[in-house]
Amino acid sequence: MMFPFTAIVGQEALKTGLIVNVIDPGVGGLLVMGEKGTAKSTAIRSLADLLPAMTAVAGCPYRCAPRPQGDGPHCDCPACADPAGATVPVRMRVVELPLGITEDRLIGTIDIEEALQSGRKRFERGLLAEANRNFLYVDEVNLLEDHIVDLLLDSAAMGRNTVEREGISVSHPARFILVGSMNPEEGELRPQFLDRFGLAVRVAGLSDKEGRLQILRRRMAFDADPAGFAKGWEREQQALADRIATARDRLPGVTVPEDILDRIVAITASLALDGHRADIVMVRAARALAAFRGMAEAGVEEVRDIAGFALMHRQRRQPFEEMGAGAGRLDQILADTLT
Amino acid sequence: MMFPFTAIVGQEALKTGLIVNVIDPGVGGLLVMGEKGTAKSTAIRSLADLLPAMTAVAGCPYRCAPRPQGDGPHCDCPACADPAGATVPVRMRVVELPLGITEDRLIGTIDIEEALQSGRKRFERGLLAEANRNFLYVDEVNLLEDHIVDLLLDSAAMGRNTVEREGISVSHPARFILVGSMNPEEGELRPQFLDRFGLAVRVAGLSDKEGRLQILRRRMAFDADPAGFAKGWEREQQALADRIATARDRLPGVTVPEDILDRIVAITASLALDGHRADIVMVRAARALAAFRGMAEAGVEEVRDIAGFALMHRQRRQPFEEMGAGAGRLDQILADTLT
Amino acid sequence: MMFPFTAIVGQEALKTGLIVNVIDPGVGGLLVMGEKGTAKSTAIRSLADLLPAMTAVAGCPYRCAPRPQGDGPHCDCPACADPAGATVPVRMRVVELPLGITEDRLIGTIDIEEALQSGRKRFERGLLAEANRNFLYVDEVNLLEDHIVDLLLDSAAMGRNTVEREGISVSHPARFILVGSMNPEEGELRPQFLDRFGLAVRVAGLSDKEGRLQILRRRMAFDADPAGFAKGWEREQQALADRIATARDRLPGVTVPEDILDRIVAITASLALDGHRADIVMVRAARALAAFRGMAEAGVEEVRDIAGFALMHRQRRQPFEEMGAGAGRLDQILADTLT
Amino acid sequence: MMFPFTAIVGQEALKTGLIVNVIDPGVGGLLVMGEKGTAKSTAIRSLADLLPAMTAVAGCPYRCAPRPQGDGPHCDCPACADPAGATVPVRMRVVELPLGITEDRLIGTIDIEEALQSGRKRFERGLLAEANRNFLYVDEVNLLEDHIVDLLLDSAAMGRNTVEREGISVSHPARFILVGSMNPEEGELRPQFLDRFGLAVRVAGLSDKEGRLQILRRRMAFDADPAGFAKGWEREQQALADRIATARDRLPGVTVPEDILDRIVAITASLALDGHRADIVMVRAARALAAFRGMAEAGVEEVRDIAGFALMHRQRRQPFEEMGAGAGRLDQILADTLT
Amino acid sequence: MMFPFTAIVGQEALKTGLIVNVIDPGVGGLLVMGEKGTAKSTAIRSLADLLPAMTAVAGCPYRCAPRPQGDGPHCDCPACADPAGATVPVRMRVVELPLGITEDRLIGTIDIEEALQSGRKRFERGLLAEANRNFLYVDEVNLLEDHIVDLLLDSAAMGRNTVEREGISVSHPARFILVGSMNPEEGELRPQFLDRFGLAVRVAGLSDKEGRLQILRRRMAFDADPAGFAKGWEREQQALADRIATARDRLPGVTVPEDILDRIVAITASLALDGHRADIVMVRAARALAAFRGMAEAGVEEVRDIAGFALMHRQRRQPFEEMGAGAGRLDQILADTLT
Amino acid sequence: MMFPFTAIVGQEALKTGLIVNVIDPGVGGLLVMGEKGTAKSTAIRSLADLLPAMTAVAGCPYRCAPRPQGDGPHCDCPACADPAGATVPVRMRVVELPLGITEDRLIGTIDIEEALQSGRKRFERGLLAEANRNFLYVDEVNLLEDHIVDLLLDSAAMGRNTVEREGISVSHPARFILVGSMNPEEGELRPQFLDRFGLAVRVAGLSDKEGRLQILRRRMAFDADPAGFAKGWEREQQALADRIATARDRLPGVTVPEDILDRIVAITASLALDGHRADIVMVRAARALAAFRGMAEAGVEEVRDIAGFALMHRQRRQPFEEMGAGAGRLDQILADTLT
Repeated sequence: MMFPFTAIVGQEALKTGLIVNVIDPGVGGLLVMGEKGTAKSTAIRSLADLLPAMTAVAGCPYRCAPRPQGDGPHCDCPACADPAGATVPVRMRVVELPLGITEDRLIGTIDIEEALQSGRKRFERGLLAEANRNFLYVDEVNLLEDHIVDLLLDSAAMGRNTVEREGISVSHPARFILVGSMNPEEGELRPQFLDRFGLAVRVAGLSDKEGRLQILRRRMAFDADPAGFAKGWEREQQALADRIATARDRLPGVTVPEDILDRIVAITASLALDGHRADIVMVRAARALAAFRGMAEAGVEEVRDIAGFALMHRQRRQPFEEMGAGAGRLDQILADTLT
Repeated sequence: MMFPFTAIVGQEALKTGLIVNVIDPGVGGLLVMGEKGTAKSTAIRSLADLLPAMTAVAGCPYRCAPRPQGDGPHCDCPACADPAGATVPVRMRVVELPLGITEDRLIGTIDIEEALQSGRKRFERGLLAEANRNFLYVDEVNLLEDHIVDLLLDSAAMGRNTVEREGISVSHPARFILVGSMNPEEGELRPQFLDRFGLAVRVAGLSDKEGRLQILRRRMAFDADPAGFAKGWEREQQALADRIATARDRLPGVTVPEDILDRIVAITASLALDGHRADIVMVRAARALAAFRGMAEAGVEEVRDIAGFALMHRQRRQPFEEMGAGAGRLDQILADTLT
Repeated sequence: MMFPFTAIVGQEALKTGLIVNVIDPGVGGLLVMGEKGTAKSTAIRSLADLLPAMTAVAGCPYRCAPRPQGDGPHCDCPACADPAGATVPVRMRVVELPLGITEDRLIGTIDIEEALQSGRKRFERGLLAEANRNFLYVDEVNLLEDHIVDLLLDSAAMGRNTVEREGISVSHPARFILVGSMNPEEGELRPQFLDRFGLAVRVAGLSDKEGRLQILRRRMAFDADPAGFAKGWEREQQALADRIATARDRLPGVTVPEDILDRIVAITASLALDGHRADIVMVRAARALAAFRGMAEAGVEEVRDIAGFALMHRQRRQPFEEMGAGAGRLDQILADTLT
Repeated sequence: MMFPFTAIVGQEALKTGLIVNVIDPGVGGLLVMGEKGTAKSTAIRSLADLLPAMTAVAGCPYRCAPRPQGDGPHCDCPACADPAGATVPVRMRVVELPLGITEDRLIGTIDIEEALQSGRKRFERGLLAEANRNFLYVDEVNLLEDHIVDLLLDSAAMGRNTVEREGISVSHPARFILVGSMNPEEGELRPQFLDRFGLAVRVAGLSDKEGRLQILRRRMAFDADPAGFAKGWEREQQALADRIATARDRLPGVTVPEDILDRIVAITASLALDGHRADIVMVRAARALAAFRGMAEAGVEEVRDIAGFALMHRQRRQPFEEMGAGAGRLDQILADTLT
Repeated sequence: MMFPFTAIVGQEALKTGLIVNVIDPGVGGLLVMGEKGTAKSTAIRSLADLLPAMTAVAGCPYRCAPRPQGDGPHCDCPACADPAGATVPVRMRVVELPLGITEDRLIGTIDIEEALQSGRKRFERGLLAEANRNFLYVDEVNLLEDHIVDLLLDSAAMGRNTVEREGISVSHPARFILVGSMNPEEGELRPQFLDRFGLAVRVAGLSDKEGRLQILRRRMAFDADPAGFAKGWEREQQALADRIATARDRLPGVTVPEDILDRIVAITASLALDGHRADIVMVRAARALAAFRGMAEAGVEEVRDIAGFALMHRQRRQPFEEMGAGAGRLDQILADTLT
Repeated sequence: MMFPFTAIVGQEALKTGLIVNVIDPGVGGLLVMGEKGTAKSTAIRSLADLLPAMTAVAGCPYRCAPRPQGDGPHCDCPACADPAGATVPVRMRVVELPLGITEDRLIGTIDIEEALQSGRKRFERGLLAEANRNFLYVDEVNLLEDHIVDLLLDSAAMGRNTVEREGISVSHPARFILVGSMNPEEGELRPQFLDRFGLAVRVAGLSDKEGRLQILRRRMAFDADPAGFAKGWEREQQALADRIATARDRLPGVTVPEDILDRIVAITASLALDGHRADIVMVRAARALAAFRGMAEAGVEEVRDIAGFALMHRQRRQPFEEMGAGAGRLDQILADTLT
């Protein structure tokens, strides 16, 4: 029994960051920065628990969505090959990437012996196969080994995982919402890896007495009677699930007006950011937020609410300057641009 | 033959910390900090030796408790699958986690070959399987390798151990009382790991002559005639065992009044702790202590007696400041809050 | 569906560097220096996507070109052994060299057991076999291990990959366009490796608002409707493909006049470069550029346009002086020499 | 042929430390600190050579003593299972623990395959099995790897070696006299390991001319005619062997009067030692020394003679203060306490 | 098709160093120090390409020379065992020693299983077997691992490679011309290894415009039409080949007069060199140079021309003083000695 | 063909150190300290080449000497078991210990599988088996790994090599003359290892012109005609061989008078050496030197000639003080003592 997502006290940035990614996975994942004991993984798991089931091709090991009329199959499994195959509902889940993972376990392995002898490809699927259409969660992502980071970035960029050995190649879809957590005091991320997270948020424990008391009461209530507690939050949970489902449906129709694009580019140009990913992330995240809010187009509010998440980890820093140190500068630019 | 727990001279903090965990394993384990020669592992072993046997499903490799009427089985073994199966008494024991342990040995391994050929899952159980419903003791826990710490934390957080390889997954209950010992002079623990220990106590050898003499005499008597010595302490041992058993039974009925919750939160808010685990631990430990004392509700006394154990290892420290250095500050806050 | 090469905004140096290499692979590859998020790998992949198919011997595992009348076969495969064998069109593609690659995987392995028992050589081809007549792309090339660099340089220098074990030797063509990317902030390349890249370019994100807006709009349009977007750029793509094909055909006839050779040598002598590779690279790159521009001979313009690419990474630097720091000096020399 | 123990010139502390351990192995071993060329291992080997044979169960791989009437067997071998089995005399010997030893070699290994297939446990005994009832000698003990130290300490503390793998467990007695040598200039021991050695002595070469000459002459005589030399010392050797055997028999009857216990505790309390092992070691060593001296109870003399050995390695030191630096302080305390 | 040795512009020191070694392999190899892009390996390969074929015993895996009348066979292969066996011409070639080579691959391995079962020695030859009577080329020799250097030095010193395992021993001739290249900026060689190279030369790119232009023109001509270019240099190539062959024949008859020996020793004594290898190398190199110049005895000119090559890497240096720094001192000594 | 030992120019200390060890292997080996190119290994090999053959039991894999009447066999081979077995002459040879040697290769391995299945011990002999009654030469002994040093020291101390695995034990004689070379600039030896070399000498190249010229001429003569050169030194070689053989026979009868022992101890006491090995080594080396000089007893001259070799590497040094730095002090002590 999972602690209900809607019963989590505070942590609005974390919640918004996750919800925006769930509405548009193209936003590109979330980096959660914060100290110990702030229930990062609990939040993700409980959000996954709340989401409505997705439709998947029955028997497909990658849980592929049914293909639109006239399209080719998403993967090369026999189930997806059949255009009239059955579908099943599957829950989105949190696949956790352990720190010491091997390359083979991450991307999967091809059994060369088998391939050479029988002519059949036998592919032992890795974690990236499990991650397709799921959350991929990396706790303490800054402690991940470099070559694993590289493999992860490759798949994240392509939306596919391709394994090649001796002329035999296997490829499968690997679209996942990458969520990483890190304690900034325990080491930094390479700029290249930082940039791959669409959004980033800081989380911290509550320091006001009232909030702490509320957390404590809810936790005690849940520990004493998980099922009863969950029942008390059922309506809130259902309401959020419905709202997310609606937002997903509405998303393609939500537009971003020209002057909003102008303002977004004005912000990133003011900050002299190196690449262009921040621009695109801001557009997509603002649009997803607008969809969540039931609006027909993204506005200045959405950009303001999302800008910090998209920019905090991409600002140039002086040596030894911590991430987020430029918050004042950013606030000024947002104030100048979004009025 | 084990040196009797009740014959240990002094070391009240250590004894209380262990007993509170035994009454409510939800308190979350104990970190024992202290120097050499202070009989940390002896104390745990002798407490385990004293505890009454637990009821377990006969034949279950994880020693699961019989399931309550209407519940599903706790694990997937054939014995637990049978709702009318027999039960056996089993002693709680101390499973020791050696420093150089491998990941395979800790979490167990799935025999993939077997699974692919015969279709049967063959799981070679690891230390976490042995640890279920037992103490898991890690001596010099600050010397444990990081990836082992990570695996340990995952299981401790979930109460289950899940092993996945190539689409085959095995999961079993892994609820244990984690007890770690460390010599703070030999290195620190990551804050994230520190926070996972519900309570922490400091132990030190006695420095007064009278106490040392008493220890020496008891040890000499035990060495000369272990069985005879144990006989002399039989009544004290049985009394403590009964008292713990009673406390366990009473625990669900012990309450924590609103004003006690208020005070607990006032303490942690004053200390500006990062997370919220300390609040919950204090509530549970105070309640367990009340149960041990035969009280119907936890009071100011229990909070005062347990606060140091829950807070010492969670206070923010200045660089190079040792754990526990903020004891004065804590005393002041306790004095202000608990009067 | 690939983002069209011709729809990439800006990045003229990168585009020219790639095109010149595609017209004359003898130019010797391209090193792309720049920060995160500047779509280096996208550019290469989309150029490969645009290029017309090459003619290859059907069934040759190295995609050898058909051999000219009277020549021997390019490799020792059965298909190439047959002078009258069929041919097939194959697309040039981007073979990626992962950072953690093993020696065996790079150069391939000889199965000694098989060779000794059956007398047949069995060669398991490595990445260099796949790379023949393709791009070989190394992301973060400055993080590559030294022994892999050595193997790569050997093959690049010889145009062949030779594997020897216990008297058994296998050799195959390995002519590829080596493209490496690096972030100069994350470490340097050994001078010996730097020198092997024919050309080097710096890339950076656009900082003017107008350019950023254009990138953003094109990206959004592509994300919304990849096929429709591609259709809009079809004519531009085809035009570039035709122009490259024509340049390739014209290349052998394009000459480099004596006074151009004089000026090239004057430049490199002024810079006191250690080796002579820069001279040859400048001649070949200027000639390829002339061919792309439809000219019959390379002129002062071509040398000026290509000189920076050939010289930036080969200039002597003071300790701690960054690559490209001598740009002012180079400009002066070019001004003096090419007027 | 071994150089006779009684012919060793000087080194009284080393000799006493060894003899006391031989009389009561419960004293807990000996740490020998000293520089090169001081014949530490020779002394141990020659003492073992001199000792009378022990009685062991014939055929027991651990050389168990015959069990007292009514007791269970000491180990689970078939020979010990038979209460009426034959016995054989065995010599105590010196088992050497090499620095690079593996965990498997130290504790032994369980053959899991065999166990699963045939149901029989097959245990390949390790060095700890050989060490039972013998000396276990570790040269340069401060260079031993940490995880080996941990295993060694576990066995030393329990008097048994327990090996567990996948639910199969093997346990056998492992009571040995641990003797370690170290050159303090080559690194220190962890305090936890230091404390496990019951006694510690310093050895040094002789610096007076007369002593050196005596050593030289005896060595030359031995080298020239080992058998003849040994014959010359036969009576001294036999006398010492008899004296040790007598002391062993008398040991259980030797008492330690109350006032001696008082004084011992007064000493350790004055030194503010961390743990309580020193107290117990002093009692046992003083008693063993009394037995060796043919006395009915331990007295002030025995405590004085043994105190330095029990305390030198347990005193708190300032950073960079060498072991033994507090000798003056100790002398003063002994003078105050033992008069 | 190889670029002709005689068409290489400049690099006289490198050319002389190689030719002298080819005439008398007893000179002891060549260390080539220089920066990137100076065609070190090209020079060696093209010299090997030019040399006339050697006579070898047909079927001998080590390409042994036919044995002189009355001598025993050079190796233990069946072909060499037959005194009347046929001979074949073989080309000298360049065997390259890769940086990451294993010990087994370098010296070869004995198949112990086979030897024990069938009684036949099966030896899998290593790189040293291939190197016999060839060049052994080590690029970036200063990056070679120490244990490989040790094995290389052993073989170079003995002229044989001996492999022993468990009482089975295999030995074969391993006389090769060791050529190493290094970039002195990338680390130094151990003095012991430096000393093993008979001669050392520095190479650098040409800095005068005319030379660079010549190199560029020849390279362009070769790239455009390798076969035609080679034809243009055929006469020069043949002339050099003949001159080397003649010098080899004349070598045994060339003498080194007493006063030349006197002067050589005067030079090395002035420099206070540690060992005596420099003296012998100078004698042999001067003699080989005299043979190449068609002279009957070595003279002052030959010593002067060769002294720098033999002494540069053997002079004592101050800490941080670069190799060759003492060139002024050497010039003065040569001037004093050779007039 | 080996360069004759007697033709080596200079290097008297090295020669004396080797000869003394050959006459009495109990002297304990030789450490040769010196720089590159000083022919250390040549000297040892050529001395071994000169020595007369030893008598060994025919068929004994350890080349054991025939056992004296009434003694047991030296090893457990079948050949030695037969008291009337035949003998063969064997040459002493130089067994080289490579730096990267494994433990298994050094001490040999027991085939446990074989032992368990067939009951026969199968021992694969290691280098220590080959070393028995031979030289064991370690080039660059200061670069040897610590655990190999430990094994080497164990065997050297015991004169036997004992291998134990799982209760199966093999032991064989391993008496060898340990000769190590080291370049003191490349790292030091642990004091414990230093002390195990009986003697130590410094070698250096000759710096006087005349000596260098002599070396050069002899080397040239040897290179030109090895057999002829050797013939010219045959008489000198035979004379030395005879003198060594005679000295070996005379050794047991050579005495060391009391006053010489007194003086030796006076020297080592003055130097405050830690252990007593120096005393014994000086006695044995002086006696062996006396035997070589045809004297009936060792005198002051022999002690003076050998003292430096026995003491240089055993003197206490200040931090950063080089070995041999105390030479002046030693000279003074020798002058005071030996007059």
